[in-house]
Amino acid sequence: MTPKHPQKGPFIIDARPGDRLTGFFLVRHKQLEPFRDRSKGEFLTLMLGDRTGQLLARVWEGAAELAETFEEGDVVKVAGDVEEYLGRTQIIVNKLRRASEGEYDLADFLPATGKNIDELWAAVQAAIESITNPHLAALVRHFYDDADFRARLSQAPAARRVHHAYLGGLLEHLAEVLALCEAVLHLYPAINADLLRTGALLHDVGKLREYAWERDIDYTDEGRLVGHIVIGAEMVSGAMEQLPDFPEELRLRVRHMLVSHHGRYEWGSPARPQTLEAIALHHAEELNAQVNRFQSLLAARREPGQAWTDYDRLLGRQLYAGRDDDLSIEEASQME
Amino acid sequence: MTPKHPQKGPFIIDARPGDRLTGFFLVRHKQLEPFRDRSKGEFLTLMLGDRTGQLLARVWEGAAELAETFEEGDVVKVAGDVEEYLGRTQIIVNKLRRASEGEYDLADFLPATGKNIDELWAAVQAAIESITNPHLAALVRHFYDDADFRARLSQAPAARRVHHAYLGGLLEHLAEVLALCEAVLHLYPAINADLLRTGALLHDVGKLREYAWERDIDYTDEGRLVGHIVIGAEMVSGAMEQLPDFPEELRLRVRHMLVSHHGRYEWGSPARPQTLEAIALHHAEELNAQVNRFQSLLAARREPGQAWTDYDRLLGRQLYAGRDDDLSIEEASQME
Amino acid sequence: MTPKHPQKGPFIIDARPGDRLTGFFLVRHKQLEPFRDRSKGEFLTLMLGDRTGQLLARVWEGAAELAETFEEGDVVKVAGDVEEYLGRTQIIVNKLRRASEGEYDLADFLPATGKNIDELWAAVQAAIESITNPHLAALVRHFYDDADFRARLSQAPAARRVHHAYLGGLLEHLAEVLALCEAVLHLYPAINADLLRTGALLHDVGKLREYAWERDIDYTDEGRLVGHIVIGAEMVSGAMEQLPDFPEELRLRVRHMLVSHHGRYEWGSPARPQTLEAIALHHAEELNAQVNRFQSLLAARREPGQAWTDYDRLLGRQLYAGRDDDLSIEEASQME
Amino acid sequence: MTPKHPQKGPFIIDARPGDRLTGFFLVRHKQLEPFRDRSKGEFLTLMLGDRTGQLLARVWEGAAELAETFEEGDVVKVAGDVEEYLGRTQIIVNKLRRASEGEYDLADFLPATGKNIDELWAAVQAAIESITNPHLAALVRHFYDDADFRARLSQAPAARRVHHAYLGGLLEHLAEVLALCEAVLHLYPAINADLLRTGALLHDVGKLREYAWERDIDYTDEGRLVGHIVIGAEMVSGAMEQLPDFPEELRLRVRHMLVSHHGRYEWGSPARPQTLEAIALHHAEELNAQVNRFQSLLAARREPGQAWTDYDRLLGRQLYAGRDDDLSIEEASQME
Amino acid sequence: MTPKHPQKGPFIIDARPGDRLTGFFLVRHKQLEPFRDRSKGEFLTLMLGDRTGQLLARVWEGAAELAETFEEGDVVKVAGDVEEYLGRTQIIVNKLRRASEGEYDLADFLPATGKNIDELWAAVQAAIESITNPHLAALVRHFYDDADFRARLSQAPAARRVHHAYLGGLLEHLAEVLALCEAVLHLYPAINADLLRTGALLHDVGKLREYAWERDIDYTDEGRLVGHIVIGAEMVSGAMEQLPDFPEELRLRVRHMLVSHHGRYEWGSPARPQTLEAIALHHAEELNAQVNRFQSLLAARREPGQAWTDYDRLLGRQLYAGRDDDLSIEEASQME
Amino acid sequence: MTPKHPQKGPFIIDARPGDRLTGFFLVRHKQLEPFRDRSKGEFLTLMLGDRTGQLLARVWEGAAELAETFEEGDVVKVAGDVEEYLGRTQIIVNKLRRASEGEYDLADFLPATGKNIDELWAAVQAAIESITNPHLAALVRHFYDDADFRARLSQAPAARRVHHAYLGGLLEHLAEVLALCEAVLHLYPAINADLLRTGALLHDVGKLREYAWERDIDYTDEGRLVGHIVIGAEMVSGAMEQLPDFPEELRLRVRHMLVSHHGRYEWGSPARPQTLEAIALHHAEELNAQVNRFQSLLAARREPGQAWTDYDRLLGRQLYAGRDDDLSIEEASQME
Repeated sequence: MTPKHPQKGPFIIDARPGDRLTGFFLVRHKQLEPFRDRSKGEFLTLMLGDRTGQLLARVWEGAAELAETFEEGDVVKVAGDVEEYLGRTQIIVNKLRRASEGEYDLADFLPATGKNIDELWAAVQAAIESITNPHLAALVRHFYDDADFRARLSQAPAARRVHHAYLGGLLEHLAEVLALCEAVLHLYPAINADLLRTGALLHDVGKLREYAWERDIDYTDEGRLVGHIVIGAEMVSGAMEQLPDFPEELRLRVRHMLVSHHGRYEWGSPARPQTLEAIALHHAEELNAQVNRFQSLLAARREPGQAWTDYDRLLGRQLYAGRDDDLSIEEASQME
Repeated sequence: MTPKHPQKGPFIIDARPGDRLTGFFLVRHKQLEPFRDRSKGEFLTLMLGDRTGQLLARVWEGAAELAETFEEGDVVKVAGDVEEYLGRTQIIVNKLRRASEGEYDLADFLPATGKNIDELWAAVQAAIESITNPHLAALVRHFYDDADFRARLSQAPAARRVHHAYLGGLLEHLAEVLALCEAVLHLYPAINADLLRTGALLHDVGKLREYAWERDIDYTDEGRLVGHIVIGAEMVSGAMEQLPDFPEELRLRVRHMLVSHHGRYEWGSPARPQTLEAIALHHAEELNAQVNRFQSLLAARREPGQAWTDYDRLLGRQLYAGRDDDLSIEEASQME
Repeated sequence: MTPKHPQKGPFIIDARPGDRLTGFFLVRHKQLEPFRDRSKGEFLTLMLGDRTGQLLARVWEGAAELAETFEEGDVVKVAGDVEEYLGRTQIIVNKLRRASEGEYDLADFLPATGKNIDELWAAVQAAIESITNPHLAALVRHFYDDADFRARLSQAPAARRVHHAYLGGLLEHLAEVLALCEAVLHLYPAINADLLRTGALLHDVGKLREYAWERDIDYTDEGRLVGHIVIGAEMVSGAMEQLPDFPEELRLRVRHMLVSHHGRYEWGSPARPQTLEAIALHHAEELNAQVNRFQSLLAARREPGQAWTDYDRLLGRQLYAGRDDDLSIEEASQME
Repeated sequence: MTPKHPQKGPFIIDARPGDRLTGFFLVRHKQLEPFRDRSKGEFLTLMLGDRTGQLLARVWEGAAELAETFEEGDVVKVAGDVEEYLGRTQIIVNKLRRASEGEYDLADFLPATGKNIDELWAAVQAAIESITNPHLAALVRHFYDDADFRARLSQAPAARRVHHAYLGGLLEHLAEVLALCEAVLHLYPAINADLLRTGALLHDVGKLREYAWERDIDYTDEGRLVGHIVIGAEMVSGAMEQLPDFPEELRLRVRHMLVSHHGRYEWGSPARPQTLEAIALHHAEELNAQVNRFQSLLAARREPGQAWTDYDRLLGRQLYAGRDDDLSIEEASQME
Repeated sequence: MTPKHPQKGPFIIDARPGDRLTGFFLVRHKQLEPFRDRSKGEFLTLMLGDRTGQLLARVWEGAAELAETFEEGDVVKVAGDVEEYLGRTQIIVNKLRRASEGEYDLADFLPATGKNIDELWAAVQAAIESITNPHLAALVRHFYDDADFRARLSQAPAARRVHHAYLGGLLEHLAEVLALCEAVLHLYPAINADLLRTGALLHDVGKLREYAWERDIDYTDEGRLVGHIVIGAEMVSGAMEQLPDFPEELRLRVRHMLVSHHGRYEWGSPARPQTLEAIALHHAEELNAQVNRFQSLLAARREPGQAWTDYDRLLGRQLYAGRDDDLSIEEASQME
Repeated sequence: MTPKHPQKGPFIIDARPGDRLTGFFLVRHKQLEPFRDRSKGEFLTLMLGDRTGQLLARVWEGAAELAETFEEGDVVKVAGDVEEYLGRTQIIVNKLRRASEGEYDLADFLPATGKNIDELWAAVQAAIESITNPHLAALVRHFYDDADFRARLSQAPAARRVHHAYLGGLLEHLAEVLALCEAVLHLYPAINADLLRTGALLHDVGKLREYAWERDIDYTDEGRLVGHIVIGAEMVSGAMEQLPDFPEELRLRVRHMLVSHHGRYEWGSPARPQTLEAIALHHAEELNAQVNRFQSLLAARREPGQAWTDYDRLLGRQLYAGRDDDLSIEEASQME
């Protein structure tokens, strides 16, 4: 795991009992607690995190004074020892101070796409340019030519937890859905390519307002109360009204793709797919989201020798990562 | 059943085998068919309707020529005999001609509210005027001060089939929901009255574009492809943007009521109620819709002596209208 | 929060770390535990509660002897210090003794309606008196003229957790449902007013046997094994048999309202609404229950500045209480 | 198929095009219709039935006069010819007259159990007598010692359509559930035998009022509006109150079995099984009902060579009756 | 629509009232019926079909003799007139004779893929050859090198009604799923390409025994009673046992893809996807099936000017084909 | 609770605070932890189990050295004191050593059937011998004559948690299902006895590979990825292929019973019951599984005086064990 900032220091995911470490972490939680023997005063319990995870930390000495010098949400520089206590890894903090601006890169503290942002943008840009219908092209450019829109899209996650739930995840999702749409267009000439690409490019624009990702990836109030499907419909309808003579047939078909892209009422779509482009978009999106979700779960750290992931409550199951890291498969191929 | 136009003639619901009738009907379907004995030429099969129902009709003579003189969707003047054939009531047409404009009132041919439109408007107007928050008042008036909006709202149905499915039904529904909201506000002072009234007044504005009701009450393309919840959200969000300094908190809360008013994802709401006003609006609307639906089913014609309505496929049950027209109940009251 | 008994002392909800408090609490749980250093003997862990919540408490000295002097379920008088330990507020008990009868009012230890019981009864009484059908009036009075029934109804909760889950909650619920029914009757003259009022007054009588509320609000065995719908049907049917010449039509319609008032099989109703009065009662009840449930969740204590309630597992969501305590709304109103 | 009355004549199920038949049938529907050539007057269309099915019938001559001489619901004596018209078998009636009382047995006109009623009663009686707990024995005898109860139970169906939907079906169902319960008791000594037998004997007593079976098997108003579970609970609770000192523990456990015997809320049980006896009763009942339902569907007439039954809408599938009447299986056994 | 056999004559889909036609059709149903005026003897009612649909046909004269000369399931040569009777198009047959073998091609009488079979096979073959793991390659070739397997796969449909429900549909479906899998593999290097291709090639082999397509596409007994998922698992497991040293890890992963490819229990999969390859296969299959299904529904004949398809009962909705055949869209593109 | 091995010592379920115990336990979990006062070194935390439950245990002295001498999964001999700490019972270990082979019986450490294995086998054997069809008899004997199959079936559990979740549970389940099938066969002569017995004997053979039970009852990889229904179908189909001339009709009917025995898609059956034998087998299995599940929950230890079991998450409810251990019922019986 390569840090964005050279002085980041070790990542949480790599911390092992016995390590002595020095590095930068985000303070996710902070609390002063009294020792049971009250004559000893108080100690400090922290939750320190970076984009690979979080660990409990304790400051045994000088805790009360130190606690005054930083807030939850600050990045701090920490020196300490990693140890295991009651089966749980924690950091015993020896030194700690608030970091100053230039010492760290926020991208080290939130999970982010492993893909190259420029390459993702190149793929998206190619799709934009391939749209030949002038109305649809204008509609898409209404959003994608806006610098602020591009800046936010470069950072936004595609979800809080389920899939592409990391910085840049929405852009990655878009690029992948577009790639799947090209495969679909190749198979089904009856699908209108301009419409499908437009749908892919615009279906999730509401997510730019559904999520916040300054300190942690979370819903905005608007995200919870209105949701990205309706936010997106309002954004796209608003844009259509600013474009001259936008054809009614296209108005209906684009908005329909947007409001139906979750595919079912119970998955939050207020309409179900009723056109060829809408059904294709829904399933391309679904395929991409689910494969990414499985990939993330399978990539999470497991104990050595463990063939199954932890139980995932939302999926309602464990996933099979394989016994022997699929060695038997590779071996088999080479045996010949 | 009183007709709007004095020359309407008998209504479908009152036609009985043996009647000889003269009156005006809407041609819902028209088809020329050959007699089995081809030498006899063709006869004409029609579906004639008015706002109380529809009946099959036949023209045995001169059918081919007559068929040239009118179209489906026309109102025609008919003289004929009502008879029963194979268990089905039908009209044997003796004379038929296309009606001219002044001879009929379209309101006789589509089902319509039995309530007084002016009284309904008075109730709605009172609610509008009771809103004291200037932003919400301005938002509501943005719609309700528009003459075209009022004209359409005076006519629109609230549904195609389920509840208030007749001309003026949407206005009737609004007035009733507002009345229920007043009862709710009386019980729960914690509910913000301005917000709830605003929600009640605006939650269904999208239905003005979801339904068409020129010849028959049906969905528009936009109604099927986008749905009244999203259409309404776009309309209301668009209006908010035209109002100066519309507060963000109100923007969220009003749109939230609108998108959550069906209460559940599987009933087509892309968000579930998360505020006190939203849950109150949802249940006031639901109560009103369901009671109206039951009332309509119970008001439909039954054979004499029949205690149960026909099976309603959408509800999945028959309703109980009562044995002896509730006479036992009335009697009981008078026994004292 | 005003206590019913003048010497109650501070309520749990108001206890803050650093407070020194003296007051009365219900002992919900009691356990002697050894110190890790066994030579020190044992300490006492208690769960102390009142109608606003519960807190952990510890007795460090003289624990074993003290523990002999009271039982779980007793009310005790406590003097102690409130402190925070490992992020959890607890009481360090300095003195504790069992309270005697006159020193406290049980109503301070269970949550109770904030409404005036007499006013609730007045509303219920008005509904009873408005019933003109002699059979229905007699049926209702069979229950409501019984002193024991009235005494229990003055105390019973309407649920264990979901809505009106506090002493007096059932009476409050009844009064509110009756108020909603009046609004419904005003809108729908086709609804039989006597029947609807009777249904509202009797639909939940089974809850008097479904719940126990001596120490804590919980189900009775009968509540769990039979449920208030069937218990209520048995009570009402039994009463009808004692009334002379109770008309069959009314027997069916009243029992139907009772057994169908949850509206759906999956919500525990063994029949679905099939009459106008039954559908109206179901939705009036549902509206009232859901709005009350939201109101309770929104009234629970939140950290300052928090716009959202905690996640409610049964509802499957958080509720929005508002950012700035709706200040923007009020301000807006005053800006004019 | 043996008729109950020697002069019944052929059953509907055996009527084949080309047959000339004379026999007794129930008039299920009757209607006079005009010939298309009105100068020819009217003919009579009838639906004639017996317990094996129903057939359309026509009277071409003297129809109007004949129609005056009998009503729907009468049994008539018919002489006619069976023929096929437009793919549908029908009877051309040559002679028809109303039957008089002694000429027929109503049991020939409604479907009825093929089992011997006395043997069924013997099995039920044995179960009653095996109950040793005096309270439960008294409770069961409260019902089973009543002559009217026994008379109705000898006739009642267990359902309108799904299982044991024929006269005597409820008694047959009871006897079979009791037999299954004995097998269960043999396997699980922890189950209280008296309770389980009591539950089996009483769980469906409400069906005696849920169904009517004079002319056709149908729901009563009470059956639709209240349902057999609540009717039964009222009957059993009422009986318990008339028995001296009926123990509370038994009151709860018997009523619990009754209200939970459908097993799930969505199948109409207002409580789910929470005791060993309740879960055993539910599954014994379910096993019996489903096997009987399959057996009835598989016993219905199929075209020769057809391996599958017709699609059953409630089950949502066709059933496999077997290709070659399982001949291959029998043959196989004899091959040895 | 081009026929496979040059003398096929007009297709059903093109028959219009007023046409005089001569051509070959499959007899799907045949029945002799008496004229109402029995003195006139009998006429013959036929259902004649080809791969584009089916039409009712009548033979008025010489019907009885003619009926002896052919059977249901035969192909016949027909000369007749197309006319409309009671709103239903039918053929009045003037001449009819049984066709002899060389006169027709069965492919004209069942719906079949419009794709080139050789090209589909080329795509499938390329996928087979790209598998490098020797065990998986051997497994796939076990099936695909078998001439009978290839012959059946060239003809089999992928479903009875829902998607690719025509001859060659299964092969078309395979080729399309493989193409989508290549797009997925390109996006997700973590997916094992050999496994995914093997899964795609084998997941539906059970359909070769689930369907019969001699006269009509229908389920086999085995298809209904066991289903293609289990049939396929048995076939693939059986093959694995014949291959030497097939690695256990691969045995599990391939069978897992097969049994989980419907994705959910309620869609008939006895296991849910638990590996990356299984989730990718499920969604690639689902995307392909749903888009094909929409395409088929949108391709079915609609009345001119109709923007919506007929209601599809299984989908529970109508689909939007577009108003003006998307003319506005094309026009728009050309406006530049 | 009688141990299988005479030196087992006390069972976990019987350990009470204050006991001094010596006996054998399985080490389920082992971890060295530092004392908070690090100068004191480390202590050892263990989870010790046997077939009646598990308890936490601590080794305060010599922990590091001792920890080297045994592994998780070993059986150890322990001497120690049982005490209560913070409301949780634990063992303070005074002595501990790894046990050697002959000192214990593994059956003491996993839960196991309380039934006599030989009697269960006798019942199963009787069913096998009662099958007269030679093909079905051969099929059943293919499995049941195999010594390894019998050995595994003597040990296998029927589930991981839900029902018969203990060693020998599968055999017990089989014997019970067979007994229920005999009762069903007695009631329904139309059911083919050979088929039903064969289905009962083979329906769960896949469970021998779905579960592992060496140290703990858990799924195998194959169990999770493929499931016992498909594993079983493969085993049975494979066996059929090795038997000469196995009739196709029987092939279909036996496999159908196997794949449909869970009864519904959502319960994991890839086909639903479509034959009389399949529906009977499904419900016999279901009855047996559910009653066993209830019995296990009701047999688990409860605090004295507690009438209700703990909440069972999978069932979604608590079960009623009875107030006064049903004494009132027994008393009642003796009152006579």
